[in-house]
Amino acid sequence: MIHQLVQKIQKLQAPVVVGLDPMLSYVPEAEKKKAFAEYGETLEGAAQAIWQFNKEIIDHIWDLIPAVKPQIAMYEQFGIPGLVVYKKTIDYCKSKGLIVIGDVKRGDIGSTSAAYAVGHLGKAAVGSQKIPVFDEDFATVNPYLGSDGIQPFLDVCREEDKGVFILVKTSNPSSGEFQDQLVNGRPLYELVGEKVAQWGESCMDGAYSNVGCVVGATYPKMGSILRSIMPKSYILVPGYGAQGGKAEDLKPYFNKDGLGAIVNSSRGIIAAYKQQAYAAYGPQHFGEASRAAVLDMIADINRIF
Amino acid sequence: MIHQLVQKIQKLQAPVVVGLDPMLSYVPEAEKKKAFAEYGETLEGAAQAIWQFNKEIIDHIWDLIPAVKPQIAMYEQFGIPGLVVYKKTIDYCKSKGLIVIGDVKRGDIGSTSAAYAVGHLGKAAVGSQKIPVFDEDFATVNPYLGSDGIQPFLDVCREEDKGVFILVKTSNPSSGEFQDQLVNGRPLYELVGEKVAQWGESCMDGAYSNVGCVVGATYPKMGSILRSIMPKSYILVPGYGAQGGKAEDLKPYFNKDGLGAIVNSSRGIIAAYKQQAYAAYGPQHFGEASRAAVLDMIADINRIF
Repeated sequence: MIHQLVQKIQKLQAPVVVGLDPMLSYVPEAEKKKAFAEYGETLEGAAQAIWQFNKEIIDHIWDLIPAVKPQIAMYEQFGIPGLVVYKKTIDYCKSKGLIVIGDVKRGDIGSTSAAYAVGHLGKAAVGSQKIPVFDEDFATVNPYLGSDGIQPFLDVCREEDKGVFILVKTSNPSSGEFQDQLVNGRPLYELVGEKVAQWGESCMDGAYSNVGCVVGATYPKMGSILRSIMPKSYILVPGYGAQGGKAEDLKPYFNKDGLGAIVNSSRGIIAAYKQQAYAAYGPQHFGEASRAAVLDMIADINRIF
Repeated sequence: MIHQLVQKIQKLQAPVVVGLDPMLSYVPEAEKKKAFAEYGETLEGAAQAIWQFNKEIIDHIWDLIPAVKPQIAMYEQFGIPGLVVYKKTIDYCKSKGLIVIGDVKRGDIGSTSAAYAVGHLGKAAVGSQKIPVFDEDFATVNPYLGSDGIQPFLDVCREEDKGVFILVKTSNPSSGEFQDQLVNGRPLYELVGEKVAQWGESCMDGAYSNVGCVVGATYPKMGSILRSIMPKSYILVPGYGAQGGKAEDLKPYFNKDGLGAIVNSSRGIIAAYKQQAYAAYGPQHFGEASRAAVLDMIADINRIF
């Protein structure tokens, strides 16, 4: 799967992923009104508003980017109707040829992690049937529980040609509380990075491994060290744009071949029409605003090569 | 919410929670056949089999225990139909007066963690409405991302009188890979434990805090240290029974008042009929086997006081 992602990145010259993390406050009033008129101010109404919002954005950007990253929490907060739209969004993106990274940050032990791996990347065994479930192409995974929690994901990655991005160093201000703690003089996230490299060895797919990692754009020096610890792992880089990461900070995340990293922007793209730079589009043309923001982001990131 | 849990534990003399982690392989053949006959070998069929299995078990044990802990992964693996049954299970347990601990192990940053907190413990704001979503009473939370990821859960706990159990030291064999790493001579899980105690200060509810923690039964010495680091936090203890934890190992997890811990068993209860000790019930009486196993577990744990 990582090989497919690399090929799409190269073809489009766009090491970029758009985070589909819709908040109701991003959805223009007119769209919300329409959804609430049909379904009421209910979980169904909220889910419908988000679905229409997503669809409009995807229709405007699908040809520019290799991948999207829906954040399941933003759907899960609206319960079953929200999760129905999460699945609909995955399927719609795949129908447009986009690679889908499910930002689910799951992680548990043994059979429980196996259940998550099946639910997101694999196939559920029901009687004599094997049935794909949410069927993302990649999923993000939390490593706090150690190898037991990761192994079932690796098994599914191998069986189904899927991939994972394992949290190593997250982009948030308090990520250092535990991740930066020094263990024999080295921060914990480096140990996690070493494990990622090790886990990835059994999941190679071309020049890179189907086991990637997440390292926030807000810590470029750490990015450089982690790049060298995990040379075969793609780095999914959140934190560009709205969270403060700048293009020049991103260079250390890439390998010399110009590959090895894919940069995420969520709010900066999907709520572009709310920013001064794209305000002229107005809420009625929010999809076009998102397209303009994607084009700007790709140009901005390509400046560093 | 923790106060309600403590009262139920005292009333029933049962510091015990039953994990509702159904695997299809636990469901007796006859029940599976019935569900597949109605819904086919589909995700709906699997979900129906699990729902009937859960209901039968709940009907046989609800009066003996204060709480249940459904493991969402086991439902999520069957997609939307599975998650519908997760919600149905929560509602059914609550209708029986059981306290529900959603074993979701969610954790992300800022607005994303807030979305999880809303989805599981709070109310979604849709237009002028505030709508409960999955509406568990407690949720388990992963701390790897630090305070940013925890704070939104604490806010919801205060607003809605709900609670969390934060992973400190998990029960699985590889939990030590990261959790046991020494930071200034002390294992990381102690640092996490100190944070749990600190986070819990703003969420007191009677003698205990709505911020509890998870510490596996498989590490009693660590349990003792963590007990003293987090005197006001309830410890949710997985790993009893099937995972190898024994009653005598559990004493360090309790405070001198006989409170402070609640012990989970999943497979040991819900798949009791598959064990030699309860095989006489046969698959057709699996609910009664589970009841017998709960009674034995309560007696076993009460031996230590």
